[in-house]
Amino acid sequence: MINSKQPLILVSNDDGINAKGIAALVEVAKQFGQVLVVAPEQGQSGMSHAITSAVPIRVRLVKEEANATWYAVSGTPADCIKMAMNQLVPRKPDIVLSGINHGSNASVAVIYSGTIGAAVEGTLCGIPSVGFSLLNHSANADFTASKELIYPIVEKVLSEGLPHFSLLNVNIPDIPFEKVKGYSYCRVTKGKWSEEFEKRTDPQGRTYFWLTGFFQNDEPTATDTDEWALANGYVSIVPLQVDWTSTSLLDTMKKSWSLEKSRV
Amino acid sequence: MINSKQPLILVSNDDGINAKGIAALVEVAKQFGQVLVVAPEQGQSGMSHAITSAVPIRVRLVKEEANATWYAVSGTPADCIKMAMNQLVPRKPDIVLSGINHGSNASVAVIYSGTIGAAVEGTLCGIPSVGFSLLNHSANADFTASKELIYPIVEKVLSEGLPHFSLLNVNIPDIPFEKVKGYSYCRVTKGKWSEEFEKRTDPQGRTYFWLTGFFQNDEPTATDTDEWALANGYVSIVPLQVDWTSTSLLDTMKKSWSLEKSRV
Repeated sequence: MINSKQPLILVSNDDGINAKGIAALVEVAKQFGQVLVVAPEQGQSGMSHAITSAVPIRVRLVKEEANATWYAVSGTPADCIKMAMNQLVPRKPDIVLSGINHGSNASVAVIYSGTIGAAVEGTLCGIPSVGFSLLNHSANADFTASKELIYPIVEKVLSEGLPHFSLLNVNIPDIPFEKVKGYSYCRVTKGKWSEEFEKRTDPQGRTYFWLTGFFQNDEPTATDTDEWALANGYVSIVPLQVDWTSTSLLDTMKKSWSLEKSRV
Repeated sequence: MINSKQPLILVSNDDGINAKGIAALVEVAKQFGQVLVVAPEQGQSGMSHAITSAVPIRVRLVKEEANATWYAVSGTPADCIKMAMNQLVPRKPDIVLSGINHGSNASVAVIYSGTIGAAVEGTLCGIPSVGFSLLNHSANADFTASKELIYPIVEKVLSEGLPHFSLLNVNIPDIPFEKVKGYSYCRVTKGKWSEEFEKRTDPQGRTYFWLTGFFQNDEPTATDTDEWALANGYVSIVPLQVDWTSTSLLDTMKKSWSLEKSRV
């Protein structure tokens, strides 16, 4: 796969530079070209597209391999991509890969996900970007099948690109390779997280809360969603856009809203 | 404006419970009903839709007024809305208002904005939600005109609601009320932030970076964008959707992609 003029592949994640998932992703990426890893020093799950401006950011060269250089950044996934683009890349990367996340980023998890935050930042930089997640939260999750399932996606996006302002959110069911039925192109499942705090009392008698909860699928019978695909043994590939304008509501507003500036 | 059965208005922000902007927003909200303020203890600018799961969260009752109760939360704007909905609301709020942010959230700032993070979380809870921002970063910014300009928008959304999975991003130019030309319904400007780190050396001789940079408008001549509206004296109202599926790319993929599962 490697051409004489090797592609440059920027890799990040939100579970941190030491996560098993990013090691698996780098293994795949190395088959396609030169890899630059820029990932958070520590876990940054649920950091969405957060950026760090209140405190300074540090960068640490972790290791240099023949075809991969690893940096750790004391910030968020989006910070990592910004830092890479501004300080670390020798040229514009050909692709940004984020993950492999330990745990699902299907449905509205995409909004909270630091894995997707990194991929969205890559997209804003004009680079084809893909976020990958395995439906297994364990630190010791098995990424063997994931590596094989990711390969054709990286190959496709690297050779053909993606439309401007678009990215892919890929989720992988936690089942053996043989049982995976294939790839499903689908949309974001509508849903939300419910009952989200566990109330406790500390040794000083003061109340505190742990974020918890469960996913509530608002459309469990729809068959064109990522949740359906995953529950039925498919790798879900959801194309996302970073332009959040609601064109339908904009049309309605232009036609029928008539707000007037007036003194209250 | 206040009916016998008063609306319940949930207010949050990302500049923190003590910011001048949220006080201005609460002043407006009180004219429409009972107000519940649940805002971060500290500034959370640039926190996007981040949520806090690695550390516990605490809640502090700040003050109780005749028609407003104020709570501070040791977390992000999205945490505040989750905490409000799960622990603090007497019933489902009729509207979520976030802001008034000190500084612009136009164009792609919407992706990084904690102000919008709170409004998106309100939207996920099925509540009509609006984020407000004034184009002035100063802690002591003047919100006099903003209060008047916000009023008709709150009135409209409170009485008519918004389509499911939609919210509004409102930005206000930093000019006197008399000079504001009116309201403009517009789309997110395509652009990005560039040259984003300032490199420094600490007293121990080690390198660190401050996030900085400037906004680069990719379509400065387009007249239907929020950046254009603001530069020309209008309050920009951008309808956003929280379903990020790219339907156009999904169509393309379904028609012409044919990824095959295969051993590498």
